[in-house]
Amino acid sequence: MADKTFTPSELYEAWPVLSDTERVEGFELLARDEAEDFFLQLSARDKTQVIQGLAPGERRLWIRLLPPDEAADVIQESAVHEREGLLTLLDDQTRSEVKGLLDYAEDDAGGLMNPRYARLRPDMSVNEAVSYLRRDARSRAKAVYYAYVVDPQERLLGVISFRDLLTTPGERLINEVMRTDVVTAPEDLDQEALSHLFARHNLMMIPIVDDEKHIKGIVTVDDIIDVVQEEATEDIQKIGGMAALEAPYLQIPLVRMIQKRAGWLAILFLGEMLTATAMGYFEAEIARAVVLALFVPLIISSGGNSGSQASTLVVRAMALGEVRLRDWWRVVRREVITGLALGSILATIGLARILLWQSLFGVYGEHYLLVGLTVAFSLIGVVLWGTTAGSLLPFVLRLLKFDPASASAPFVATLVDVIGVVIYFSVAAMVLRGTLL
Amino acid sequence: MADKTFTPSELYEAWPVLSDTERVEGFELLARDEAEDFFLQLSARDKTQVIQGLAPGERRLWIRLLPPDEAADVIQESAVHEREGLLTLLDDQTRSEVKGLLDYAEDDAGGLMNPRYARLRPDMSVNEAVSYLRRDARSRAKAVYYAYVVDPQERLLGVISFRDLLTTPGERLINEVMRTDVVTAPEDLDQEALSHLFARHNLMMIPIVDDEKHIKGIVTVDDIIDVVQEEATEDIQKIGGMAALEAPYLQIPLVRMIQKRAGWLAILFLGEMLTATAMGYFEAEIARAVVLALFVPLIISSGGNSGSQASTLVVRAMALGEVRLRDWWRVVRREVITGLALGSILATIGLARILLWQSLFGVYGEHYLLVGLTVAFSLIGVVLWGTTAGSLLPFVLRLLKFDPASASAPFVATLVDVIGVVIYFSVAAMVLRGTLL
Repeated sequence: MADKTFTPSELYEAWPVLSDTERVEGFELLARDEAEDFFLQLSARDKTQVIQGLAPGERRLWIRLLPPDEAADVIQESAVHEREGLLTLLDDQTRSEVKGLLDYAEDDAGGLMNPRYARLRPDMSVNEAVSYLRRDARSRAKAVYYAYVVDPQERLLGVISFRDLLTTPGERLINEVMRTDVVTAPEDLDQEALSHLFARHNLMMIPIVDDEKHIKGIVTVDDIIDVVQEEATEDIQKIGGMAALEAPYLQIPLVRMIQKRAGWLAILFLGEMLTATAMGYFEAEIARAVVLALFVPLIISSGGNSGSQASTLVVRAMALGEVRLRDWWRVVRREVITGLALGSILATIGLARILLWQSLFGVYGEHYLLVGLTVAFSLIGVVLWGTTAGSLLPFVLRLLKFDPASASAPFVATLVDVIGVVIYFSVAAMVLRGTLL
Repeated sequence: MADKTFTPSELYEAWPVLSDTERVEGFELLARDEAEDFFLQLSARDKTQVIQGLAPGERRLWIRLLPPDEAADVIQESAVHEREGLLTLLDDQTRSEVKGLLDYAEDDAGGLMNPRYARLRPDMSVNEAVSYLRRDARSRAKAVYYAYVVDPQERLLGVISFRDLLTTPGERLINEVMRTDVVTAPEDLDQEALSHLFARHNLMMIPIVDDEKHIKGIVTVDDIIDVVQEEATEDIQKIGGMAALEAPYLQIPLVRMIQKRAGWLAILFLGEMLTATAMGYFEAEIARAVVLALFVPLIISSGGNSGSQASTLVVRAMALGEVRLRDWWRVVRREVITGLALGSILATIGLARILLWQSLFGVYGEHYLLVGLTVAFSLIGVVLWGTTAGSLLPFVLRLLKFDPASASAPFVATLVDVIGVVIYFSVAAMVLRGTLL
């Protein structure tokens, strides 16, 4: 770092690879106005880190730059014993707003909202509204694009965009020019559902209201991008077979990452042990026809792969709202057909491979054709089982109120492996009875 | 459907399960003003479908409702031979704008932008600007929140929000009140990079400029939510081991879905065949110690699972910009430590399981301890290989200009399976030499 100054974008570039101390040092080297912009652009986690790194006397300045929803995020990211101290740094009004926000669950619409918004009365003229907003503008820390029209009890009546205020003749009444079909969301709406609402209606802001239509605050679309990324990251990590990390990969402490991964890995390992048990039942068959053992990984992994395709598709379609619980039968029907088709393709390749190797190297003995047919039939059965189980599992999880994304590729693979072993050796027992077995 | 009318939200609810014809029928039953709102909220794909389903005489009305960027999306979604016909339905100005947009790649910033935006001159007063915008408002189909200040050559000088126009004394010059540090993006910026720009700077709109700072159009944040969802879906499907579907699960024709899945499945199958080859080399060992075969699925799947955790984490961190190519060594170092830790945990569980089963059922013969140690050492080796290979693969793919998300769970599992077999039997040969082997 040394003592040369540098630009915010240089600091931003280097940010991910800097240690906590270096970040704060770098931040303190920025020119004051650049530092403000830089600070406001940081994620809540990084803002918290910077504030914690500053001398106590300097913290007040920075946390007071933030609108209430962002201050609440920063306090939520802080260690529990730090929170009270940070709250005392805020001015009275913001502190009470932040306290209100901290009561909401982090994943609810209420946890995302800004309690400050531009409000108007329906009987104002456009000119009155504009001069009212002009006087009142000082109190709005965050750029807003709509003013909400409320009655004396703060119940939502309508909405008007700043653009419409600007382009409507000044003597018209707000009443006449506001839109009344406002899309709103309840306080306890899950943030994923809220993001669908934004996407579906192409909105910039959604007011959060209680049962009696009182506005509690507003959520802006730029906060929703972070939500969408976060939810996708959680799902992807679950699909990859682990607990969601909830922190950037390079920043999460190694021990915590190992904990997040060891849990699922151990569960999958215990599940996979059933393959050893299952194969134990067929030990005599393997001893008589060792050639059967050679294809075990090939067959069970094909089931796992087709299963993880199916579960991944269904999990994502559920997250996007494209597939609902009641669609399960349509999905399973598709997956049965898909499984038969994919299984037949792999069976053909597998049989061709065995016939080819036999003619080239003669490695599979006199009953090579029966071995090939065993492999082919098993592949159809195992792939069919993979797509069926992989597509059903997310529905079962959702029915039991678990996250469908837990139907991860490794989870499905494990489920399919055990049954795959049983299918393979059962087919072998039928096809090879009287010859190899 | 029958002849009763129903509400847009009923239609929206039923939409995913309706056939193409039912959708158009339902749409035609909506009241005219409701139908307009409903139509504007549909995805580009669904808008296209509705337009195609309408009588040719009615299409003009609906496609003309759309701003140029959305009309371009609809035309892009249409079959090639339909496009010219749709273009002729547009008015002259929109048609030339749409043609301009169609030249951009769909995944570029240019493909997302709206060529219409509010523009001002720097030497206008705020009052002049407001009355200029008021006169000009008619031509802006889509709600905008910023006016861009340009010189006579249409080069970007600065930006001012409608809110600031509303709240700034009218005699000030635009020059004095505009912001000049505008975040812009080049036309050919990838849409994923563009979404990072929105997220990083918390912006509502970003102007797209050419090399000489001429504004080509603007992208609004609500379009970016769709981009973020789309990119996450693509990545998730690739991580699940298939080509991205590029259509909702229940709507993609079955044959096309099978094609999208069969390709990767067959490639993985061919790769997995190497396990049969690898195990072929150890056929004599398996014949002598059948007990070894029992643990093959357990061991190789543990490598696959730990590998898919590692690759999923790295792929997602790359997509979010948290990890860059040059971070590879930091990542691999973390994954080596993680692999050793996770491998040791599984080795302990595995050894305990074998000792327990032996004392309960006596199934593993007199050399059970050596078998247990073989399994334990192999697990450490295989899991270490899994995390290392799984974390390196996305870097290798990116270096070779492939999509890192192709380092799917099944791909990594296959890679790890083959080496896993070799590791396991090599450890067995060392540990069991002179006893079982």
